[in-house]
Amino acid sequence: MVNPPLADERRAWLNARFGERLEVVGSIDGLPIEQAKELLPRARVVIGMRWPEGLPDTPRLDLLQLIGAGYDGIRFDRVPERAAVCNVYEHEIGISEYLLLAMLEWEIRLGAQNAALHQGRWVDGFALDRPPHGELYGRTVGLVGYGRIARETARRLRAFGVTVMARTRSPERCDELVDDAGDMSDLVTLLAASDYVVLTTPLTAVTRGLVDDAFLAAMRSDAVLINVARGAVVDEGALWRALTDKRIGGAVIDTWYRYPSRADSDTPVYPGNKPFHELDNVVMTPHSSGWSRGLLDRRWRVMAQNLDALLAGEPLVNVLKAAGQAPLPAVLDGA
Amino acid sequence: MVNPPLADERRAWLNARFGERLEVVGSIDGLPIEQAKELLPRARVVIGMRWPEGLPDTPRLDLLQLIGAGYDGIRFDRVPERAAVCNVYEHEIGISEYLLLAMLEWEIRLGAQNAALHQGRWVDGFALDRPPHGELYGRTVGLVGYGRIARETARRLRAFGVTVMARTRSPERCDELVDDAGDMSDLVTLLAASDYVVLTTPLTAVTRGLVDDAFLAAMRSDAVLINVARGAVVDEGALWRALTDKRIGGAVIDTWYRYPSRADSDTPVYPGNKPFHELDNVVMTPHSSGWSRGLLDRRWRVMAQNLDALLAGEPLVNVLKAAGQAPLPAVLDGA
Repeated sequence: MVNPPLADERRAWLNARFGERLEVVGSIDGLPIEQAKELLPRARVVIGMRWPEGLPDTPRLDLLQLIGAGYDGIRFDRVPERAAVCNVYEHEIGISEYLLLAMLEWEIRLGAQNAALHQGRWVDGFALDRPPHGELYGRTVGLVGYGRIARETARRLRAFGVTVMARTRSPERCDELVDDAGDMSDLVTLLAASDYVVLTTPLTAVTRGLVDDAFLAAMRSDAVLINVARGAVVDEGALWRALTDKRIGGAVIDTWYRYPSRADSDTPVYPGNKPFHELDNVVMTPHSSGWSRGLLDRRWRVMAQNLDALLAGEPLVNVLKAAGQAPLPAVLDGA
Repeated sequence: MVNPPLADERRAWLNARFGERLEVVGSIDGLPIEQAKELLPRARVVIGMRWPEGLPDTPRLDLLQLIGAGYDGIRFDRVPERAAVCNVYEHEIGISEYLLLAMLEWEIRLGAQNAALHQGRWVDGFALDRPPHGELYGRTVGLVGYGRIARETARRLRAFGVTVMARTRSPERCDELVDDAGDMSDLVTLLAASDYVVLTTPLTAVTRGLVDDAFLAAMRSDAVLINVARGAVVDEGALWRALTDKRIGGAVIDTWYRYPSRADSDTPVYPGNKPFHELDNVVMTPHSSGWSRGLLDRRWRVMAQNLDALLAGEPLVNVLKAAGQAPLPAVLDGA
């Protein structure tokens, strides 16, 4: 039982690998709801990200395998005690590449140089002695949150000669990649020092609205805020005020306040309640930072390994709730 | 005697540092030619990149300090035996950042995502289940030439999980950053394996026109050629044919066949004899890859250290020709 849309080639791959051991019945999205209701009570494994309303109990469930990292779509109190819940990561590579790209582009402006030279205009470079562009070398980057994404980002940043600061609720997780580690109570030092402030925290009761007017006021006036966490970590009104008043240098935003539904796909859908799209000091991307070809291949490989482990009675990886562990609260707070 | 245009603040900085020991007479560009002709015969130091035609002998010259790395503008047979010639680098940081940016942008297309979302269009990301973008992780990059620029590039590439190949006329220079090293006689293996082929060689009799039809035909059909060396390393007609016939995936070109003069600065100047600006599979930048704020600061710091060393009778750095070494051939072949 798989609940994201399942491409034919992926279903064939699952069937080839597990067809003799598991019946792969395909996507809930693609099945009539009555058929899904009939199948779920006998499903041993569900692969998905959401637990749609109105679905029946799953008394035979052994594994709810999430297809992504975030688990804000799962009602953990609906998962039976016997079942394990596991997630997958593998997006840390793509997101860290996106972050380095965003910072390098902010410094160098390759896009603008390319557009201009396609029209014969030399806007940078020594030929007409233009003002030189920036460098990432020697900059300070402040990571808010220090999990897998932040660690892969720090690894790359250090190769560029960047000073890495990090603040996390578990500073003992910080490793040799971090020059200056601390807990969330000391955000102000990071905000005062950073050329780039990068949000990588999960969305929890604590991080919702973490970036408010005071947070943005503590940033340097030329610093750039980058959000690859969740839209709601940044208070939308506060971000709007900081960008329109030019209290910060700018922002790169990948995670948003409004998302299109599939029915919208032909009409423009602006991603904020405020018209961020009218600003030129914000780089806007469509929640794409981790959406890479490598991501999906790596995730299905990890999920298949978990299915193998389940069928062989071996330990699962990325366990959020162990089999036999009592049902968790309805909403689980992020790590 | 300084021959590039010398900003006022830089002249003040030189005077503050050396004013009691050297008379800083400013830029040849800014002096009437007759005055330059009068000053050069008594100049002890010349800082510059070109040796304009028609200038007198410099019998008292101790140091010709180049303000950049390339020395194709210097007639070494015009330099007296007593004088040393030194250059400066420091562009390896900026160029390596440019190269990583160019490759990441080729994979991820941040610019196109940003432009589209400013119009409410979601062209990437999972929200509308768009086709995922590429990753640099797992790619192979082939470096043609392995000097300072290539080494800094390799250091950064490895942090991204990229396989680094290099071909150079001095393979013994390759270090632990290179996964697969070889000499220039074995370019074909590199060209067949590389997702990105990066030219970092100096322009010499050997490398002029190195990238010809056969070189481009040996590249993979989806591979990208990146030139941050000199325009003439790539045969212009061969590049034009490869791009228009789509025999390679594309190109990122920073060094060109035609440059604007200062008088041109208001009219469009296209950088090729072929209309590369009409193509959408070439990223074009105005010889800007190394043109960063940090570059100029670092270069002047190194040049000042060389002046200090000269005045103190201590060893110079980045010596192309030592003091007392017999005059070199008119044109020196690159390292």
